[in-house]
Amino acid sequence: MAFYERQTKGFVNIDPLQTGGRLSEDAKRVLVEWGDGYSVCDFCTGSLFEIKTPPIRTFVSKLLPEFLGTEYSRITNGAREAKYAVMHALRGKGEEWIVMDGNAHYSSYVAAERAGYRIALVENSEYPEFRVTPERFAEVLDDVAKRGNVRLALITYPDGNYGNLPDVRKIARICESYDVPLLVNGAYAVGRMPVSLKELGGNFIVGSGHKSMASAGPVGVLGFNEDFADRITRKSERYRNKEIEFLGCTARGVAVMTLMASFDYVARRVKRWDEEVEKARWFSRKMEDLGMIQLGEKPHNHDLMFFEAPPLYEISKKAKDGRFFLYRELKKRRIHGIKPGLTRHFKLSTYGLTRDELRYVLDSFEEIINKYSG
Amino acid sequence: MAFYERQTKGFVNIDPLQTGGRLSEDAKRVLVEWGDGYSVCDFCTGSLFEIKTPPIRTFVSKLLPEFLGTEYSRITNGAREAKYAVMHALRGKGEEWIVMDGNAHYSSYVAAERAGYRIALVENSEYPEFRVTPERFAEVLDDVAKRGNVRLALITYPDGNYGNLPDVRKIARICESYDVPLLVNGAYAVGRMPVSLKELGGNFIVGSGHKSMASAGPVGVLGFNEDFADRITRKSERYRNKEIEFLGCTARGVAVMTLMASFDYVARRVKRWDEEVEKARWFSRKMEDLGMIQLGEKPHNHDLMFFEAPPLYEISKKAKDGRFFLYRELKKRRIHGIKPGLTRHFKLSTYGLTRDELRYVLDSFEEIINKYSG
Repeated sequence: MAFYERQTKGFVNIDPLQTGGRLSEDAKRVLVEWGDGYSVCDFCTGSLFEIKTPPIRTFVSKLLPEFLGTEYSRITNGAREAKYAVMHALRGKGEEWIVMDGNAHYSSYVAAERAGYRIALVENSEYPEFRVTPERFAEVLDDVAKRGNVRLALITYPDGNYGNLPDVRKIARICESYDVPLLVNGAYAVGRMPVSLKELGGNFIVGSGHKSMASAGPVGVLGFNEDFADRITRKSERYRNKEIEFLGCTARGVAVMTLMASFDYVARRVKRWDEEVEKARWFSRKMEDLGMIQLGEKPHNHDLMFFEAPPLYEISKKAKDGRFFLYRELKKRRIHGIKPGLTRHFKLSTYGLTRDELRYVLDSFEEIINKYSG
Repeated sequence: MAFYERQTKGFVNIDPLQTGGRLSEDAKRVLVEWGDGYSVCDFCTGSLFEIKTPPIRTFVSKLLPEFLGTEYSRITNGAREAKYAVMHALRGKGEEWIVMDGNAHYSSYVAAERAGYRIALVENSEYPEFRVTPERFAEVLDDVAKRGNVRLALITYPDGNYGNLPDVRKIARICESYDVPLLVNGAYAVGRMPVSLKELGGNFIVGSGHKSMASAGPVGVLGFNEDFADRITRKSERYRNKEIEFLGCTARGVAVMTLMASFDYVARRVKRWDEEVEKARWFSRKMEDLGMIQLGEKPHNHDLMFFEAPPLYEISKKAKDGRFFLYRELKKRRIHGIKPGLTRHFKLSTYGLTRDELRYVLDSFEEIINKYSG
């Protein structure tokens, strides 16, 4: 009756949004088992984070914080909801600033707007690397701190455009020296690569289940330590076991269950991160052999990469479909992930794809370039 | 490896949280098809509500508002998140009040705390009906309006303890006369019974996908009209297609897809609401034949019912397991939904269960009472 087919099924999907969120086999099985709406609440005693059957409590109080390198964790409806929870919990009265890197995801910005902050952006180093440096972070922080009350800082690790991994250790020390807590947005890190707040520094870490932890959407994770635990887990005055920033309970149902089911798989795959980086660098070199230019940090340290593609851009000026030629050519070849109309600049991700799949992508680019240049 | 089994599988589940959230067959199919994290974002152009493939845009801009009797709709991460979005969007500066019925769900209260409101509760009529009357609503509203600035009112339709359906039409007119917008929390109505904000009155209606719309969790719906559209859909200053109260996008992935897949099924089932009410009343009479007392409105108008159970309470005083005897006896009979330890008072729901299943529940209660009385 009302079945919707996913049109990209069976495609090689290089969309950075998609490569880390593909379900594990275990997650596919729990999908059906826990599909019904409030399934996880069969044995609830008042808080999602305290449910013992299924073992959400153990996951939230032990497994997840260990994985994040924090003392506490919470499951949220997504990374953006986790960021907003922190921003809102810390927000005081009057004018307050948040300082964030200029490569921040739009949802960090929107969450800060929702929480009523004034926002200062630390601009990146621009073409070709677009780096956010600790030095520039310090300058902006210092400047804003002189003019106003800085309540929070945020750094994106890595960012979702260039896949750059800023030096969070240094930035955390800088923030500490200004007594400004730091939130690390690891939506493209947690679940893909080893990441520990303990090692990085900073006060909060946020991850995305559907983006990088092989989970059904929407679900996110938040790690934090004792110093901010009271603020983050503040209870309702009337309902003493309900946490205000999480409106009592967050990712009820299949979202949390796929996150938990994929956890072993995810914990194993982050240990193979070196292979992923090596594969990304190999792919980047091959793309450059075709005349593309990889922007962002080089050599690159993440599967998410941004390319400038002069050969494709030149073709778009003359092709019958104009700038849509690339999308159509890739679609014909069952490759998905570069937005329709993009040719000059685009991002993609090599995460979790085999070398054969990536070779197929590279060969396809070459074939397309040759076809239109011929 | 990491498979979690649902222990209540195959049980007759009378937990009010569970009866309206069981997936339709169509929803079960899309679960697997759209399980991967950001699956619905394959063809995104910047906003969840504008996605054409799958047809989320049509659902949000046409089907869902028609169903809710509103001009606009949004999909949220749950009913509580929808309530918070409205409360936060309307919240001004300084001290502001929200007036809500005393039968309100805890999440309404917690959402209001999070949004920084002072909260006035309209107490119910107490034992045995626990009704929230328009008269009392008017009194409290009038009283608070004299003392402070009332920004919003909320009515729970029906509430989650007694399944009472207050007279929203009258309450909406009262709120209008005070120029106070009214939010109708229909988490136990939308998707179970016919409900239209246009007919009820009020300014916002909220529903729950996982509670009452046969959807995987978490997902909610929000309906509203032109008068508050600008406030609710306020855009980011920097990212012009991102709505602040929804942090850009909400229920991405399988949550929205099960909601959409179940929509036809849900739209059909609300038309059979009369049968559900009749079945609930029949069940209530049979329970009373066993010595239980149905509290709340009588005759009852909803599948969610609250019972006082003197025969079971008497047994609990002497049984070996004490007050846990009932849970164990029901578990033995593969009946789930009354919390462990409850005997004197409990709620349950008859929604979507067959008469045969409900007869089995009734026979089980009778058998248990006889066993311990013998």
